[in-house]
Amino acid sequence: MKIILVGATGTIGRHLQQTLAPSHELLTASRSSSVKVDITQPDSIWEMFETVGKFDALVSATGHGVFASLPDLRTDDFYEGIRSKLMGQINLVLIGQHYINPGGSFTLTSGILAEEPIRGGTSLSMINSALHGFTMAAATELENGVRLNTVSPGLVEDSVATIGASFPGHNPVPMHRVVNAYVKSLESALTGQVLKVYG
Amino acid sequence: MKIILVGATGTIGRHLQQTLAPSHELLTASRSSSVKVDITQPDSIWEMFETVGKFDALVSATGHGVFASLPDLRTDDFYEGIRSKLMGQINLVLIGQHYINPGGSFTLTSGILAEEPIRGGTSLSMINSALHGFTMAAATELENGVRLNTVSPGLVEDSVATIGASFPGHNPVPMHRVVNAYVKSLESALTGQVLKVYG
Ligand SMILES: NC(=O)c1ccc[n+]([C@@H]2O[C@H](COP(=O)([O-])OP(=O)(O)OC[C@H]3O[C@@H](n4cnc5c(N)ncnc54)[C@H](OP(=O)(O)O)[C@@H]3O)[C@@H](O)[C@H]2O)c1
Ligand SMILES: NC(=O)c1ccc[n+]([C@@H]2O[C@H](COP(=O)([O-])OP(=O)(O)OC[C@H]3O[C@@H](n4cnc5c(N)ncnc54)[C@H](OP(=O)(O)O)[C@@H]3O)[C@@H](O)[C@H]2O)c1
Repeated sequence: MKIILVGATGTIGRHLQQTLAPSHELLTASRSSSVKVDITQPDSIWEMFETVGKFDALVSATGHGVFASLPDLRTDDFYEGIRSKLMGQINLVLIGQHYINPGGSFTLTSGILAEEPIRGGTSLSMINSALHGFTMAAATELENGVRLNTVSPGLVEDSVATIGASFPGHNPVPMHRVVNAYVKSLESALTGQVLKVYG
Repeated sequence: MKIILVGATGTIGRHLQQTLAPSHELLTASRSSSVKVDITQPDSIWEMFETVGKFDALVSATGHGVFASLPDLRTDDFYEGIRSKLMGQINLVLIGQHYINPGGSFTLTSGILAEEPIRGGTSLSMINSALHGFTMAAATELENGVRLNTVSPGLVEDSVATIGASFPGHNPVPMHRVVNAYVKSLESALTGQVLKVYG
């Protein structure tokens, strides 16, 4: 398959790249990858698809949101995550649906905060839940057999050193289990599903 | 209780007003109500709270989103609903938390599309799911015993004539059951809950 991997340089993306590159035509995308894209800019997403042309699958393991306690959270903090992790990924589907080959697939990334809040994580809980609702609904309207799923990882083992302290009591998830969820979305017939990989 | 009812002139809001006015100090708010507010404008929300001062509960039965099939949905369509039903209601909590009395409550409105997509409803499914994630998470961080719940109505009987055709096979919900969910949120000890009123 010709696969666009957005977020290829990230903690999860690096491992997806290693797993997918040997058996697919893999195009790596991010602000600093060979295929340049800034998902917060819809024009940049249009340009990416114009450059890449037709493709079979898009995997997104990217997106940013603001962590802060509720009394400190401001409207603009929510919009920062909305422009990036939420609408950035939704725009990959909205725009990408006009370029993807029949029978292709989109796989996005949310996270366990959709279901289990942590202190300071309200805007991420909102965004991850939004991605789940989008996935369930948009999958019913994609045309030509195009599929859409979202992988919802728990805290991955590789991120324990950097962000583990914010996830007390969470059982870290081995990276190979997270990578497998993306492979399942890519290679199965599933659509409209949230693939939960919790510890 | 001193209650602010946002969306007091709406299909659901009218009935909430009738039910709550006899036993509470009820302030009715919307763009055309006696308390003027436009929830798409954070400054307007700040002004409303400055005008109203301390209060015990806020009920929001308002918010707009764009219906269109997925191939026709544009980024701006999503942002229209984000500014209104999603961030409009979230801003009522973000800003209102600084004005509400200890032990007070917020009650927002989502809808069944969070769980059951309909054709053309993708942006509303996204928004309603987002409100559920927000509710679950924000409720854990509100201070001074302030509570937060969201009522998720199915298609209400009163709206069958106008929008029923978009909800094939949905069992319409009697208005009094929807009103009761807001009363439950107001008068119970529940917090962080989605009160589903489906037919
Ligand atoms: N790590 C975890 O434990 C964990 C758990 C649950 C969910 N998640 C979610 O999984 C996703 C990936 O997480 P991660 O830890 O792998 O993230 P990460 O290490 O921060 O990597 C982010 C990736 O996205 C790219 N990126 C960032 N902003 C971008 C933009 N505006 N446009 C295009 N690309 C952009 C980055 O590359 P450039 O800087 O080159 O653009 C990088 O490749 C995120 O949505 C995160 O919330 C992670
Ligand atoms: N009706 C249903 O069957 C149903 C089912 C599930 C969920 N819901 C949800 O329930 C909520 C209320 O639905 P409804 O049918 O009662 O709506 P509606 O009849 O359209 O009433 C909307 C109310 O919100 C106010 N409003 C609209 N835009 C506003 C803004 N920018 N700022 C402040 N107030 C604003 C309107 O008053 P002004 O014009 O004076 O501002 C009106 O009072 C919506 O979120 C809807 O999605 C409805």
